[in-house]
Amino acid sequence: MKTRLITPTPSAHAYPLLIKNLLDTPLIYSPDQEIVYRDQHRYTYKTFSQRVKQLAAMLENLGVRPGDTVAVMDWDSHRYLECFFAVPMMGAVLHTINIRLTPEQLIYTINHAEDDVILVNTEFVPLLASVKDRFNTVKKVVVLSDTGEIPESDLDFAGEYEALMAETPAEYEFAEFDENTMATTFYTTGTTGMPKGVFFSHRQIVLHTYATLSVLCGYAHQANITSNDVYMPMTPMFHVHAWGMPYLMTLLGAKQVYPGRYEPEMLLKLILTENVTYSHCVPTIMNMLVTSPAINQVDLTGWKVIIGGSALSRGLCAQALKHGINLYTGYGMSETCPVLSLAMIKPHLMETDQDEQVAIRCMTGLPIPHVQMKIVDMKGNALPHDGKTAGEVVVRAPWLTQGYIKSEEKSEELWADGWLHTGDIGVIDAHGYLRITDRLKDVIKTGGEWISSLELEDIISRHEAVSEVAVVGVADDKWGERPLAMVVIKDAFRGKVSEKDIQDHCMGFVEKGQIPKYGVPTRIILDADIPKTSVGKISKKDIRSQYQ
Amino acid sequence: MKTRLITPTPSAHAYPLLIKNLLDTPLIYSPDQEIVYRDQHRYTYKTFSQRVKQLAAMLENLGVRPGDTVAVMDWDSHRYLECFFAVPMMGAVLHTINIRLTPEQLIYTINHAEDDVILVNTEFVPLLASVKDRFNTVKKVVVLSDTGEIPESDLDFAGEYEALMAETPAEYEFAEFDENTMATTFYTTGTTGMPKGVFFSHRQIVLHTYATLSVLCGYAHQANITSNDVYMPMTPMFHVHAWGMPYLMTLLGAKQVYPGRYEPEMLLKLILTENVTYSHCVPTIMNMLVTSPAINQVDLTGWKVIIGGSALSRGLCAQALKHGINLYTGYGMSETCPVLSLAMIKPHLMETDQDEQVAIRCMTGLPIPHVQMKIVDMKGNALPHDGKTAGEVVVRAPWLTQGYIKSEEKSEELWADGWLHTGDIGVIDAHGYLRITDRLKDVIKTGGEWISSLELEDIISRHEAVSEVAVVGVADDKWGERPLAMVVIKDAFRGKVSEKDIQDHCMGFVEKGQIPKYGVPTRIILDADIPKTSVGKISKKDIRSQYQ
Repeated sequence: MKTRLITPTPSAHAYPLLIKNLLDTPLIYSPDQEIVYRDQHRYTYKTFSQRVKQLAAMLENLGVRPGDTVAVMDWDSHRYLECFFAVPMMGAVLHTINIRLTPEQLIYTINHAEDDVILVNTEFVPLLASVKDRFNTVKKVVVLSDTGEIPESDLDFAGEYEALMAETPAEYEFAEFDENTMATTFYTTGTTGMPKGVFFSHRQIVLHTYATLSVLCGYAHQANITSNDVYMPMTPMFHVHAWGMPYLMTLLGAKQVYPGRYEPEMLLKLILTENVTYSHCVPTIMNMLVTSPAINQVDLTGWKVIIGGSALSRGLCAQALKHGINLYTGYGMSETCPVLSLAMIKPHLMETDQDEQVAIRCMTGLPIPHVQMKIVDMKGNALPHDGKTAGEVVVRAPWLTQGYIKSEEKSEELWADGWLHTGDIGVIDAHGYLRITDRLKDVIKTGGEWISSLELEDIISRHEAVSEVAVVGVADDKWGERPLAMVVIKDAFRGKVSEKDIQDHCMGFVEKGQIPKYGVPTRIILDADIPKTSVGKISKKDIRSQYQ
Repeated sequence: MKTRLITPTPSAHAYPLLIKNLLDTPLIYSPDQEIVYRDQHRYTYKTFSQRVKQLAAMLENLGVRPGDTVAVMDWDSHRYLECFFAVPMMGAVLHTINIRLTPEQLIYTINHAEDDVILVNTEFVPLLASVKDRFNTVKKVVVLSDTGEIPESDLDFAGEYEALMAETPAEYEFAEFDENTMATTFYTTGTTGMPKGVFFSHRQIVLHTYATLSVLCGYAHQANITSNDVYMPMTPMFHVHAWGMPYLMTLLGAKQVYPGRYEPEMLLKLILTENVTYSHCVPTIMNMLVTSPAINQVDLTGWKVIIGGSALSRGLCAQALKHGINLYTGYGMSETCPVLSLAMIKPHLMETDQDEQVAIRCMTGLPIPHVQMKIVDMKGNALPHDGKTAGEVVVRAPWLTQGYIKSEEKSEELWADGWLHTGDIGVIDAHGYLRITDRLKDVIKTGGEWISSLELEDIISRHEAVSEVAVVGVADDKWGERPLAMVVIKDAFRGKVSEKDIQDHCMGFVEKGQIPKYGVPTRIILDADIPKTSVGKISKKDIRSQYQ
């Protein structure tokens, strides 16, 4: 294709998209705006920017050079925000360590990411110390302490963060480099195998910031964010850069509040005293808040909260709305930087009733600008947007991980056909709203179609005799897979319900057109002992291996 | 510098920033939102997107291929908006022709840009026909007609736009290509020589859109724009893509109103009937509106208007504010895509009095994200932000023209030292606000300093005897240049005022520290016949050549 290229790479006047430039604007527009840490500390953007220079200089003194990796193990803090900027701005890679990893996973990720320096909160010192003998690349460990005290430990600390900062002049010239330079990395834990490393460039983080901002600020649907909002993350900063929001709110020069570890009383206190108006969290945290006794002492009217990580139930949504909280779903994953879609209520749907609006807020949402999204069948064919046909959600966007670190095979699987495969099964309705219905690995592939195990479980659980149910697909010569249901019968119904009763119940939903006939489980195990994981979740992997 | 590049160019999963993706989001979020043309025509974004495909197919039928150039001569219309998208989306270059060029300039730009196809509004057919014998590259001409009638002309038309559209199926697959592909070009007219061509890539237009949006939507200062706004341009679409706003408002899926040619009654009528809330224009148009008799019939409260192109006077600003119009300055030029800065009132300045706020709104403003801006002296040294020291405004941003088409020498001059030289002289105050004080070519370079000719003219004009004044720099062996003032004395003072009286008047401002002593004009021509251009503007070029 003959087109006219106007910027030979590299061009004399090229301007790379770098994280450092996100910090220029707030320093001009609102240098005196505040960044707050719990009820302990506050400073201005002007000071923040000085400390970002100071941190870079301090890390350089510790031997950190462009291309090196600096890992952080911390709760949400102003110090973590300093790392979000200083580390990538000096051309190094920020590794945000998941503080909930097992020691085995932890040392695996530290060695796999080739961390050079680790900054660790006092609270995680014992965990880190337990694996220190297996460090392959770590040269220095810095301790982050709210009190300035360095805990007793086998770890040989290079120093304490604030003490090291205090002895370093705030002088550092951030260089300009290729926008495709790696800026961040972190590890995503699956149900099997060791964590997998994803990674993002400066260009990707800048574009993710702009595109997310364009919807959150520009689309005046049920909510819109501006520089007047006060932001507090309630998704950990180690988890996909707290969904990228610290970068976005910094670009806006908005007030930011970092709550440390998540304690309901502290969160509610900060919301009240700092006038927090915008947050994001997983449903568990929101549930913890709305069931907290302290909730009735706080006026949460107008508090905008994006829910992600797992499905938002209509019950929790309605309960939060009752408290005046303006919440809705965001969708994304570690591999996607993360935002792919937001459950914005379209202008013409703002007039619908409360139930309908709750339903929309609980959807996975509409793709944000520059996200291409489709649902595909097993052969990769795009499926219709009819609100019924389920397919795997595949996406393209300028900010997706280009693969998994040092894992060619898994990277190729992730990017089959040039689209990133989310591993989620969903339907898209005529309005363009995506609704996730299952995980691909749990879906039942039968008769050339996908049937959601979650939907079958939902149907079976509506039978009055059923107290618990798990559905998996088991291999079948003719159909590929057929559904198998393990059912626990309520005590009162024990012995009074047969396998056929459950199948008949399912047939009722076949007649309503909700599931195809081959979706009715051929095998039903009554009074089953459903296998569970160590944390009490149903282990479909174990069921499958038991009945395969 | 050792850094880790994560996206080899081109990467298997690279995602180029292309104009076509700006059109995806409104089709999902608000497909039924309207695009309106005067009081004549309206359709939805859904139809708009169909017509963009139709136009691409129609142009392809006319022989247009990627890399070709399609030129447009039209007033602001929905058809022009279709060209804004279809032409670059097919990999061709959109040349937005300035309809106010002389025939000589017109044919120069058509041949210089190597236009392949021209779309011309009926009204400009005679102008275009007058140069048709000198076409070098033009193969087809399509006429744009509101009535469907094709005017009598020597031009050999390929057809009429709507008729050609009607016979073309809306089928076109827009390919993906390098984001550095040229998307648009147009010519900027200086005071000397032929127009110079600037050019912008898809990447540049997309980034300009996002960065401008981030301030206009995200910064809740005196104004913020959302998808609920109704947009009407009042800066021609041929002029730096109507400041890029049609791309931005399309991404937001906002209602857009295209007024054709600018007639005060039609503009006011559209504002009223279509509830226009956001526009932009040069001071002349705003002045035309606020002095129009029809203005008192329209409630303009909350109408947000960005003023650019030339300085906004405090008088006009105050007058517009009195009508409830929320106006402020934007700064940029053809070379800069164009937005560089916006006169947003900072949060802590929102509490200042009306006069102070008028002063800020009339400033050139604060740089938007990713714009680096400084003022430099003659040697390229950065000057302090003290609100007094004047220097040339130089900028970097990801969306600046990489040079002038086929003009190496002028391109190098434009990009001396790796910064784009605006040719404007300005001061930056401690808050970061830029105020343009002069054009570089009119500034007087004396004693190693720059003195604003406009400031000297302002000072001299405050003498009670002066009716008109022009100041230029003339060569001086010792000082480099010294100011020369041509002064017209009011009839009542004729013969009663000497050169020394004027110099003494200037000395008063030296004592106040407003100008240096060597800023006092050494030569003053009383009762001068100040040379003017054909449109009545003072011709400093002629004065300089007269006295050099």
